[in-house]
Order: sequence, then C-alpha cells, then structure tokens
Amino acid sequence: MASSQPKNVGILAVEIYFPPTCIQQEVLEAHDGASKGKYTIGLDQDCMAFCSEVEDVISMSMTAVTSLLEKYKVDPKQIGRLEVGSETVLDKSKSIKTFLMPIFEKCGNTDIEGVDSTNACYGGTAALFNCVNWVESSSWDGRYGLVVCTDSAVYAEGPARPTGGAAAIAMLIGPNAPIAFESKLRASHMAHAYDFYKPDLASEYPVVDGKLSQTCYLMALDSCYKSFCNKYEKLEGKQFSVADADYFVFHSPYNKLVQKSFSRLLFNDFLRSASSIDGAAKEKLAPFSSLTIDESYQSRDLEKASQQVAKPFYDAKVQPSTLIPKQVGNMYTASLYAAFASLLHNKHSTLAGQRVVLFSYGSGLSATMFSLRLSEGQHPFSLSNIAAVMNVSEKLKSRHEYPPEKFVETMKLMEHRYGGKDFKPNKDCSLLATGTYYLTEVDSKYRRFYSKKVIENGTLANGH
Amino acid sequence: MASSQPKNVGILAVEIYFPPTCIQQEVLEAHDGASKGKYTIGLDQDCMAFCSEVEDVISMSMTAVTSLLEKYKVDPKQIGRLEVGSETVLDKSKSIKTFLMPIFEKCGNTDIEGVDSTNACYGGTAALFNCVNWVESSSWDGRYGLVVCTDSAVYAEGPARPTGGAAAIAMLIGPNAPIAFESKLRASHMAHAYDFYKPDLASEYPVVDGKLSQTCYLMALDSCYKSFCNKYEKLEGKQFSVADADYFVFHSPYNKLVQKSFSRLLFNDFLRSASSIDGAAKEKLAPFSSLTIDESYQSRDLEKASQQVAKPFYDAKVQPSTLIPKQVGNMYTASLYAAFASLLHNKHSTLAGQRVVLFSYGSGLSATMFSLRLSEGQHPFSLSNIAAVMNVSEKLKSRHEYPPEKFVETMKLMEHRYGGKDFKPNKDCSLLATGTYYLTEVDSKYRRFYSKKVIENGTLANGH
Repeated sequence: MASSQPKNVGILAVEIYFPPTCIQQEVLEAHDGASKGKYTIGLDQDCMAFCSEVEDVISMSMTAVTSLLEKYKVDPKQIGRLEVGSETVLDKSKSIKTFLMPIFEKCGNTDIEGVDSTNACYGGTAALFNCVNWVESSSWDGRYGLVVCTDSAVYAEGPARPTGGAAAIAMLIGPNAPIAFESKLRASHMAHAYDFYKPDLASEYPVVDGKLSQTCYLMALDSCYKSFCNKYEKLEGKQFSVADADYFVFHSPYNKLVQKSFSRLLFNDFLRSASSIDGAAKEKLAPFSSLTIDESYQSRDLEKASQQVAKPFYDAKVQPSTLIPKQVGNMYTASLYAAFASLLHNKHSTLAGQRVVLFSYGSGLSATMFSLRLSEGQHPFSLSNIAAVMNVSEKLKSRHEYPPEKFVETMKLMEHRYGGKDFKPNKDCSLLATGTYYLTEVDSKYRRFYSKKVIENGTLANGH
Repeated sequence: MASSQPKNVGILAVEIYFPPTCIQQEVLEAHDGASKGKYTIGLDQDCMAFCSEVEDVISMSMTAVTSLLEKYKVDPKQIGRLEVGSETVLDKSKSIKTFLMPIFEKCGNTDIEGVDSTNACYGGTAALFNCVNWVESSSWDGRYGLVVCTDSAVYAEGPARPTGGAAAIAMLIGPNAPIAFESKLRASHMAHAYDFYKPDLASEYPVVDGKLSQTCYLMALDSCYKSFCNKYEKLEGKQFSVADADYFVFHSPYNKLVQKSFSRLLFNDFLRSASSIDGAAKEKLAPFSSLTIDESYQSRDLEKASQQVAKPFYDAKVQPSTLIPKQVGNMYTASLYAAFASLLHNKHSTLAGQRVVLFSYGSGLSATMFSLRLSEGQHPFSLSNIAAVMNVSEKLKSRHEYPPEKFVETMKLMEHRYGGKDFKPNKDCSLLATGTYYLTEVDSKYRRFYSKKVIENGTLANGH
C-alpha cells in the first residue's frame, strides 16, 4: 500500500466469532415460567449464545483476530493500528488491546497505535471511526487498521436475562475497501442518561431501566435521523427518505426494538412528508400527526400503524440483517456489526453499488447514524470472500444447545468468577472449534492465561 | 472555520484543573516514618493533590471543560468532537464523555462524536490522536475537537501511596494551531504486560509491580526512541539525537523516573554514536557499552554515569516541564499534558519555532513518542494566552495543605465511597474556587449529581 491520499476507506475484511454454547429462547422461556412467546415473539429472539467458563471477551477477541489474519492472509506486520470496542470490563486499566499484542509481538511488530474505546454498545463504532480517520489522516503510515468489537452480555435473573449474548467481530480497515464510508453522511446524538449503566463495579451485571432505555434509543434514533436527513439534503440537494438506502442496519439488543426502530423511521418520513410515504400510508398515520413527541414514544396504536406501513420495507431493507442478532442475542459493541455481517452473509452477491445505513447506539448515551457504500472489491477483500470466510451458516449450525439448568448453573459460576483470582477453569474445551482461544488460569495476582486449541499431528491438542 | 484541507492541526487551547486539596511530600514522608528524603529526593516529588469527597474525575472534567470554553470564548456549538482519556472508572459502561454532554445539550448541540479511550495513563494520548485524525479526515465538519484527560491516582497505604495525584486537562483541537503535530514523527510500542493494572474491580487501588513497571517504561521508551529516530532519519536524511529537539516531555508517575528516562535517551544516543555525545560523555559511558540490554536496566553505575552526562541537557530541555507533576503528583492520563502545560507556563515567550518531543506511557502497556512544532499563534489561541488562561502559579499558590492525619482520613472515606451508592458528601465546598463543579449526591440507583460553585449577586452560592 502506498501512503498517498487514500480513497474509499472502509472495511476490507470481517471475521465473526461467537461461543458454541447457546440456549434456545423457547426453552428458556418455558424454564423461566414466562408466558408462551414472551421471548420468541415479545423480544423476537430465537437463541442466545453465552460464554462458558473457558471463554471471555479476551479469548473471543484473540480468536477473531487470529482467524481474520489467517483466513485473509494478512501478515501481522501489516497492521499499524488496532483498537477494541468493549463494555465488558475484566480490568479497569489494562486494555483488551494489550491482551491482543502477543499475536503481533511474536512477529516483531509492536508499533501499533490504538487502545480501547468505551461507551456501552457504542465503543466498537467509536473504534471503527477512529481507525478510518487514522487512514485518512497525515499520520497514516500505509498499513492496515484493525477494529475488534468484543462483549459478553449477561444479566441478573429476571426479565432482562433473555437479552444476553456474546460475540467478537474483527474488521480490517484500509483504502479501496468494498465497504466504504460515505463520510459526510454521518450524524450523532450524544447525551447524559441513566438508561443502562454499570456502576456496581464488583458485578458483571448492569443496572437497567428497560423502558427508559427503549425511549432513549428511539429518541436518539429520531435525532440522528433528522440530522442525517438534513446533512443529506444539504449535500445532495434533495430530500432523504428510507427509499434512498437499500438496507438499514440497527444496533440490536433484541429484534423487537429493531422492528420498532425501523417503523419509527417511517413515521419520521411521514412527518417530513418524504417520498417513501404513499397515499395509503399517509392515511394510516394521519391520526398520529398531532401527538406530542413524548406521546409518540408511548402510543401502542402508532406503533402498530407504523409497523404496518413499514412491513414491506422492513422485509426488504432490514430483515436480511437480523439473522445473527436473533440467533446469538445482544452482543453489545458487536451487535450492530453482527447485524451487518448477517446482511453480507445473506446478500453478498447483490450488494455491489448499494447503500447501507447503520444506526449505532450505546446507553449513557451515544448514537450515530452513518452510511456505507458497497462494491464487490478484489479478492481476498471482496464481499463474496468475506461471506465465505465468515461462514455464518456453519458456525450457527455447529453450536451446542445447553439445557436451561446447565445454563443457569453456568451463569452462577460466572457470577462467582467475575473479578476473581486464583482459579483454573474446567479443562474441558471439547465444544470449542479448532483455532479457538480459551482461558486456562487466573493466577493469585489476577493475571489471565490463555491457550489456543490446535491440531497437532492430526490429533486435537491444546497449544500454548 | 472552513472545512478545506486543514493545515497545522494540533492544540489551540489548554486549561488545567487540579484539586485545591494537597499534602506536602515532606510532611507525608515524616508521617509515614519513611527515611528522610525518600519521597522528596527518592521520588523527587514536592507535593501531591487529591480529591476530597466533593470532587472526582467527572467533576474535575466538567470544571476544566467549562473553564476552557468560557476563557477562550468558544461557543459550545462549535464543538464537533469530544473525547475523554481516563483510567479512573466510576462506571464500567457509561462514559465520562456522556457526563459532560449537558454542557453542550443546553446549547442544543448533541451532534458531538467521540467517547472514552482507555489504557492506563495512555488514554489521553489516544483521545488526542483520535481528535487530530478526525480533523484531518474526510468526516471532519469544520468544528473543533475537545480532548479531556481526567484522573484521580490513589494507592493503598504503603510505598506507592506518595505517587498519587489528581487533575483534569482540557485541550481544544483544530487547524492552524500554535501547537501543531509533526505527524510523521511518531513511534509507538505496545505490548502485553502486568506492570500496573486494576483487576480488583471493587477497589479503586491498582495492583502494582513497581520494579517491573519502571523497567517496562524504560523498555518502551527505548523501543519508541529507536523507532522515532529511524523514522526521523528516513524523513530528514540525517541522524536524530536529543540535540534535535528543544524540549522533551515525559509521562511522569514521579519525577525520578523522568530523570532516568531522559538519561536513557542519552545512553541510546551514545550507543548510536549520535551527535549529542561529545568526547567527555563518550568516555564516561564507554564502560557500559558491553552491557546486555537487561543488565543496562539494572545497572546503578550506568544510571549514575548517564545522569551525569545528561545533566546539562536535562536542565535545559526537561526541567521546565517538571513543575506541575512535581507539585501535583501523578495525574495518570493528565500527567504528560500537565508536564507539557508546565513547559508552556515556564517558557511560552520563547517557544515559537521550537520542537517538543513527548513520551506517553500507559501500563499494560502502550507507549508513543511524538513530536510537536510550536508557533506563537493568534489570540485567543496563542502560547501567551494559553499560559495566561492556565494561570498555573496562582492555582498552585492558592491550594490548601492538609495535615497527614486528615489526608489519611480522607483516603479512608474515599475507599468506602468508591463504587458506593446512596450518600451525600459533606456540603462544605469552601476550599473550591468559584466555577468548580462538585459532587452533591449519589442516589440509591448510583446516579451521580453535581453542582457548580457560582457567584450570585456578588456573594458566593452553589448553583445547579
């Protein structure tokens, strides 16, 4: 790569990892004594991945990074920046990025900028923007950037527990990318809120106000969309509507909120008299035009009417991105990019030339709506190769379903282990795929040790 | 500001805040029963600031940001990016940046990118680089960036306690800056180490291996300096030595390490046969040329010899940056920039045209050496105005010294308060200057509330 003015900076390659351990929402629903459909229809979730005692956000990020480098044949020396987005804190000072450095140190590459970015589920987006900006800055040295989103979302027993999940995503950043940023089409909304936060430092579980968090999410969405449309209109000289993007990808704590969010964009388009709203839609939404903004967040009737209006758009523009979030659950920083990965998986052969608008949200709160323009790209950095490398279907299929009792038992063990020291997890990593990193020990000084599951002489062994 | 290709991107304005509460190292030394000079000569520290129960990293950052905006007359609407570097965790998910948003929300500005950057004392440097890169990127919208470094460094009773400190620094980022980045002169060293970390999540105190941390610091310094010199030589076609920069500014956990670090650069210059080393210096250092690298970190004789060689350079090129770190203590992410602020304070009238090389270090570990080129700039963004606004002498002079018993009592109280809920600090904020933010309550849901100390109708009052 030359270090001349780079063009089409964006995502060159993607790898996703989620734990093989999971539980069906239908099973959990029954076990929890929840009403039938509460998780599967109410939240619109199918399955939930979780870390067993041998995995955590560090091991998952190691797995995703090494897999990306190997599968796209990227020399670790070619990485000039590496940053991590996460809200799962295993150490309050030492970044997850530094845990990834041994992968590069062994190749003699320690000149790698970037640390961890933190704000709830938004940290990955911040890391991604930082990496793209670096490539476009005068301090870029011609090498690739690498962004990792890694999180384990776990909740105390109760109504929020089925909204957990776990995954790590690695994304390679550089010029001439098949997934390029439309850098002027970006609008943020940041504010001070207590919708979801983690002030109880000794506990892995957040403090959540579910209702407030949903309203904060929708308010941030409204604000970002409004500003995004204004910027588009200044730039393009014409109005923006949902018809002007081929796909919309949302941060997905649970899919019901994605449905509501997309409907909300349609309601916005209605209020703005935008071209996506035809006569029939106008008629359906007319009764709600006089609602105050607060009323509009509370009205079930509006929700229903706008979902009806949105339905055909949703099926075409949103549904293809919902696969992994529905199957794996909330992956916090990785959720938005797992949704985007679902789109790449489902539609890679037809995405060239298309615009994808993403909405990133992190409680507390920070949110950005931004636009990507896709092209097929050149092997290995092509949409089709990205889909092949991610191999999503196979990864989903080869998972291992836990019965609810064993899931609850694992959660209890993990509660106890969180922030702890001087323990060795169970050595059984038979469920992990070859190439997966896993935790072997946390010593008396809280130092964490990991190994990689490898094949030696044709038989499985655990390497160091 | 126009959004055309920006030139001389860097720091336009600086404000620093540290608590008025402090303790003399000489007094603490005597109280701790340490040998005379252990803190004042052994660590080379004079005084240490700390947060009393009414202050924390959030309140300090609010104080620094509002003061910067007011004193440089920057409209909050002109800020397009705001990011925070900190390693003092009061919430594991909600960023400190979001606590600063109300300052901007009340002006109707919520479109502000950026979150928190985390890796020990390095987070502020990461935030600074991110902000500069943003201004140079295609997504820059012509507004200013704002970087905040805020930390409270506290240690358990024992040998590390005198290496505490507390401060917040705010820096305004944009083009045509009096403090501009030489963006190609930048070298990083990042690696996986357990020299200082915070794995005990419920405690504010770190786990520290003091000896290892010092070696890690010096190894990272060597690596960065080597790479920095290589980059300089490729760019400029000639060798770099300490003679080629006017000032060197170091991350300062305690000033003794700054002395050692600068001497280490001289030893590097000696090994590289660089021009800064004259005949007499060569003779002094010759006995150490055959040491292995590990031996060189341990040799007291080398340390002594290289400090002798370094002395005249140190007095000219380093000493002017040591004022605030010696008077306030370790400010973690703010330490390096407090050292730089000391240089601006002491030398602002003669800095135009000069090159300042900075070394940022964060345990865990991440480190970067980078170069700034200074010019006088235009009011209000001029070196002389920055020095006037910071008003360092007055801030240092108007502090309140605690007796050691009261200091220890405050530390005990803060231990208890850390991570706690449902309490109201003592209402006495008489020691705080007008314009200072302070903590008024942490409610039963861990929500934190702050007020600003204001003057109303000529008399002091506490505003909301």
